[in-house]
Amino acid sequence: MLPFARVTIVGLGLIGSSIARAVQATMPTVRLTGYDASAEVRERVRELGFVDDVADTAGTAVLDADLVIMCVPVGAMGAAAAEFADDLPADAIVSDVGSCKASVLAELSEALPKATIIPAHPVAGTENSGPDAGFATLFNGRWCIVTPPPGADPVAVERVTSFWKRLGAAVETMEPKHHDLVLAVTSHLPHLIAYTIVGTASDMEEVTQSEVIKFSAGGFRDFTRIAASDPIMWRDVFLSNKDAVLEMLQRFSEDLTALQRAIRWGNGDALLDLFTRTRAVRRSIIEQGQDDAAPDFGRHH
Amino acid sequence: MLPFARVTIVGLGLIGSSIARAVQATMPTVRLTGYDASAEVRERVRELGFVDDVADTAGTAVLDADLVIMCVPVGAMGAAAAEFADDLPADAIVSDVGSCKASVLAELSEALPKATIIPAHPVAGTENSGPDAGFATLFNGRWCIVTPPPGADPVAVERVTSFWKRLGAAVETMEPKHHDLVLAVTSHLPHLIAYTIVGTASDMEEVTQSEVIKFSAGGFRDFTRIAASDPIMWRDVFLSNKDAVLEMLQRFSEDLTALQRAIRWGNGDALLDLFTRTRAVRRSIIEQGQDDAAPDFGRHH
Repeated sequence: MLPFARVTIVGLGLIGSSIARAVQATMPTVRLTGYDASAEVRERVRELGFVDDVADTAGTAVLDADLVIMCVPVGAMGAAAAEFADDLPADAIVSDVGSCKASVLAELSEALPKATIIPAHPVAGTENSGPDAGFATLFNGRWCIVTPPPGADPVAVERVTSFWKRLGAAVETMEPKHHDLVLAVTSHLPHLIAYTIVGTASDMEEVTQSEVIKFSAGGFRDFTRIAASDPIMWRDVFLSNKDAVLEMLQRFSEDLTALQRAIRWGNGDALLDLFTRTRAVRRSIIEQGQDDAAPDFGRHH
Repeated sequence: MLPFARVTIVGLGLIGSSIARAVQATMPTVRLTGYDASAEVRERVRELGFVDDVADTAGTAVLDADLVIMCVPVGAMGAAAAEFADDLPADAIVSDVGSCKASVLAELSEALPKATIIPAHPVAGTENSGPDAGFATLFNGRWCIVTPPPGADPVAVERVTSFWKRLGAAVETMEPKHHDLVLAVTSHLPHLIAYTIVGTASDMEEVTQSEVIKFSAGGFRDFTRIAASDPIMWRDVFLSNKDAVLEMLQRFSEDLTALQRAIRWGNGDALLDLFTRTRAVRRSIIEQGQDDAAPDFGRHH
């Protein structure tokens, strides 16, 4: 039996449109409704055809839904939910895909005080954005973290879990606060660092922009992929998960200062020790199927 | 006409073994001799068969060479060259593939005061090491930077340039000092940052190592590839290009502090501005063929 029969997706970018495509592929009898605040995106989605209906207002989009998934930037969750609060069926479950869970739970709870809210976060994506960027297999073999609020209905949690498993994801349950700390390390800090280094490299006087681009295969190009991620989405993540991000940033800066000192004083052993340890982390990630084993991410040579 | 007839490669790891395989593929009449300080590597290379001869000493390896390419860590260049100094033919050209050019030029010039030295740096590689990791197409479409010393013989420079072009690389000529500054931005700083962040993530108390691995697809896994690069090679790079690396690190730290402040004070506009700028850098890299246009580096989903 399918966990949901009528699914509404609010926000039809990379993640929303990937969920829709994955639902079409794995649960073809589900009735899919989509809504996006942008008229241009709604028009494009009508052409692409990965939902049964594109609604022109959030209210009409949720009218008969049994699952509503919010796929908007985390800073826009509250306002987007308020738009359909009066039209939400009493028995509908509201979920989302935001990268921060404590702030999203707070915003959705305030906007929808009577709704059953089961937040979730599929740890998957690419650097591209918009309804054309999505694809049905994005969640295959990736983790989806479900963060039910205290006292959440176990049946509702189970239905959301079952939904994500059908899309190909493995599901883990976590406290929202702990999720935010884990993702600050594995996602938010890496994005912040990547954005920074790409900015630093762009602002050199002695090295031209064209040299930076030309010789980027020495390592720099890896960072530019992440630093090409959606600017609004990531602005909201850093502002919404401020405390955990600042804490991780502080630790990173301390570690960087220690390494800087080792270089300045020619302490090769300290460098060698760290560089040997980090090699093992890559091996674990590949062993656990969280990245491609092919060298250079399998880039074509 | 081939630029060289008898090529000796000293150091048979990822780069040395890739050059040998590329020479076999593109210049099959060239006589290839290999030498490696490790008896185990020499034995393995005899099995792999990508050189005509594996010599057991550096001296015998260079006896009849017209090109000797040093493919050892930059900190080992001087000692490795001293080993064969007495056996080097007077008309041989000595080149290398090191990631720092000023220090390597100084070391090689001291060890081989009479030799014609034309340093070079192919900006290519993977995170893997050793003679099994190399492949013939590694340099296809990549840049090789040649850094001739002042007053270098133009014919010798032309022969080294021609050699690299035959291996598939595009060649650019640069001053050694400028090379070291450009690569500090596009390669050395990115590696240093990647090593640091992987170390930071491994040392968390509140987030387990297994959580870091599990949820690494949120961005972290990208950094682990670079942080799996050869530890000895990279220790030597940071110690050899100390001044430029420390200068870049200082700039990066300032930029990171500015971003930290923007997050702390909730300055979303500053974040959005940077994140929009960095997106354009990625586009340029793809337009100039320096990375795969496929989303997520073309990883399999």
